[in-house]
Amino acid sequence: MNERYERGLEKLGEIDGEAGRKVIESLQDIAPDLARYVIEFPFGEIYQRKGLDLTTRELVTVAALTALGNCQPQLKVHIHGALNVGCRPEQVIEVIIQMAVYAGFPAALNGVFAAKDVFCERGILQK
Amino acid sequence: MNERYERGLEKLGEIDGEAGRKVIESLQDIAPDLARYVIEFPFGEIYQRKGLDLTTRELVTVAALTALGNCQPQLKVHIHGALNVGCRPEQVIEVIIQMAVYAGFPAALNGVFAAKDVFCERGILQK
Amino acid sequence: MNERYERGLEKLGEIDGEAGRKVIESLQDIAPDLARYVIEFPFGEIYQRKGLDLTTRELVTVAALTALGNCQPQLKVHIHGALNVGCRPEQVIEVIIQMAVYAGFPAALNGVFAAKDVFCERGILQK
Amino acid sequence: MNERYERGLEKLGEIDGEAGRKVIESLQDIAPDLARYVIEFPFGEIYQRKGLDLTTRELVTVAALTALGNCQPQLKVHIHGALNVGCRPEQVIEVIIQMAVYAGFPAALNGVFAAKDVFCERGILQK
Amino acid sequence: MNERYERGLEKLGEIDGEAGRKVIESLQDIAPDLARYVIEFPFGEIYQRKGLDLTTRELVTVAALTALGNCQPQLKVHIHGALNVGCRPEQVIEVIIQMAVYAGFPAALNGVFAAKDVFCERGILQK
Amino acid sequence: MNERYERGLEKLGEIDGEAGRKVIESLQDIAPDLARYVIEFPFGEIYQRKGLDLTTRELVTVAALTALGNCQPQLKVHIHGALNVGCRPEQVIEVIIQMAVYAGFPAALNGVFAAKDVFCERGILQK
Repeated sequence: MNERYERGLEKLGEIDGEAGRKVIESLQDIAPDLARYVIEFPFGEIYQRKGLDLTTRELVTVAALTALGNCQPQLKVHIHGALNVGCRPEQVIEVIIQMAVYAGFPAALNGVFAAKDVFCERGILQK
Repeated sequence: MNERYERGLEKLGEIDGEAGRKVIESLQDIAPDLARYVIEFPFGEIYQRKGLDLTTRELVTVAALTALGNCQPQLKVHIHGALNVGCRPEQVIEVIIQMAVYAGFPAALNGVFAAKDVFCERGILQK
Repeated sequence: MNERYERGLEKLGEIDGEAGRKVIESLQDIAPDLARYVIEFPFGEIYQRKGLDLTTRELVTVAALTALGNCQPQLKVHIHGALNVGCRPEQVIEVIIQMAVYAGFPAALNGVFAAKDVFCERGILQK
Repeated sequence: MNERYERGLEKLGEIDGEAGRKVIESLQDIAPDLARYVIEFPFGEIYQRKGLDLTTRELVTVAALTALGNCQPQLKVHIHGALNVGCRPEQVIEVIIQMAVYAGFPAALNGVFAAKDVFCERGILQK
Repeated sequence: MNERYERGLEKLGEIDGEAGRKVIESLQDIAPDLARYVIEFPFGEIYQRKGLDLTTRELVTVAALTALGNCQPQLKVHIHGALNVGCRPEQVIEVIIQMAVYAGFPAALNGVFAAKDVFCERGILQK
Repeated sequence: MNERYERGLEKLGEIDGEAGRKVIESLQDIAPDLARYVIEFPFGEIYQRKGLDLTTRELVTVAALTALGNCQPQLKVHIHGALNVGCRPEQVIEVIIQMAVYAGFPAALNGVFAAKDVFCERGILQK
């Protein structure tokens, strides 16, 4: 375990919590090196960087994943992440609504539905 | 001219400045209604909303356009926009670098090259 | 309720029927303003425009959503919409098959499978 | 020269005219089989099919290429194609504006700018 | 049944086996011509070509479908296909991991999860 | 300079040669850390991995970049890369043609045109 791995693992826990740990665990029997890269590069390098606070980092990630529209599981993990690092639910929704302008209404709608699932899981919203 | 149009036009000027006006102007002889929608919906509605400050709104837009990777002219307009509303150049670069994680290195590289053009135009960077 | 909202709500009912109403309803507790924008902009503005009849508008939407390939729920809503405004099932299938040329065979196949679900729901096809 | 090739070549001339011939020619020294497939499959099969008239076929292609946003040269060829088979310029613009809803405003803007280039080339619009 | 169809059908069986046959079958009541095109063009033309062995052809397909990220069913069919024509499971995983660089980590993660499902179905991996 | 950086820099030279060095250089005044990540992660980690030879790694990259269709500069760099590590021009063309099936004809055409530029630069093809 090198230093990047250790600090990445800690940051992964801080941002993604249980959801992050599950992703890492699910890779162990098929692509353990991809798990290691996830820990070392995004969490051990990018999320360690100065110049942008963690709440902004999570909001721009929610924006990108909503706009791309082809990675709903990761979008949900990062909506959890945004809330874990202190974003308010309304901020997450604002970012997703704004994506209607840049990626179209279907992308924004599917982003909101992902947020709805996450908000229900966390008891912010009643099913 | 309705109220949404008027407040949208003002917001467009505030965020996109000269670049925004040029886009609107270039639409007048071919699709003036699209120009009107750009003013009324993104700028007259979305960028008027509370719950997210303008700097964050511009950074999430830069994130989305970098990740999508197929709309360089609009990415440049919004890098200008981010700087116009008070983002520091380093924040813009941080957002774009982070996109390497979510949309791949080519998207991040092309985002940085768009930022380089904008920073040169504004004299932040020497060619 | 402004005029755009009212005419948009009526148009939404005409095109998307029950499926459209469900989408709007499902947004009420999390992003009611996005529901309002869906009604006011696509349905209150775009689908009100002259210059293209509703059947062509729905077919080009089916084309775009099939090609993008990352918004199956909205594709199904608009296959319903196409049939609701008078497109024949064969026209919908023709549009989707043509997308193999511009977006690849996987996009076309997933478009056909979406159409199959819709045609079964409507009793056009037996499961 | 098989039958599909012959009827495809004729259809390519009918729809894409000079622009189509240039594409085919430019492939001869590097990928002549791709030129053959373009003639045989899209033009020799798809555009031969019944169930959708050629104007609708071109409009759905314009929709898809505008929404995808990463193939401007082909979008221009098919805006020419749409006009060649009898679509009115306003119909092409209507389709492109509608894409703002499904693929976002940047995609629609870039689609309109492609149309502007084509309309200028054809003298429909003054530069 | 023409010659392209016959050799395509044979190649489809060789590469995609049971999964391929199911796709073709599922198209019969809704878009039988798309089934025919799948057989005639990708399998009757492209996969017949010289210049690249079948294992490389399947690996580049796995790469493209992982990177596009919006066609998981076809990705699974081609992970099966890669293994059917003699790729080792580690090669498939290597290709998918590499996509993290070009299309981002979410695309690579979803590719690995598709491979995991396929490897479990084939008994290469225990659930 | 850590070990990953050193071996990455060497691998970058081996694969991308002059084109790679130019990309790294062009990042120095705006995002030097992104240059470092490009060297450390794709070239210091991924292209160091066993289980897939370099020619296959470059061909799957060409496939992905052709299919994504929104990163032509990087596609050209990797067509150079494929040839640098020993792929034959015909193999590159085969991969790109195959993408017509999975990402549509426009993507394949633009891939071939990128290859044409590269082949001309290298004198494989006469302009």
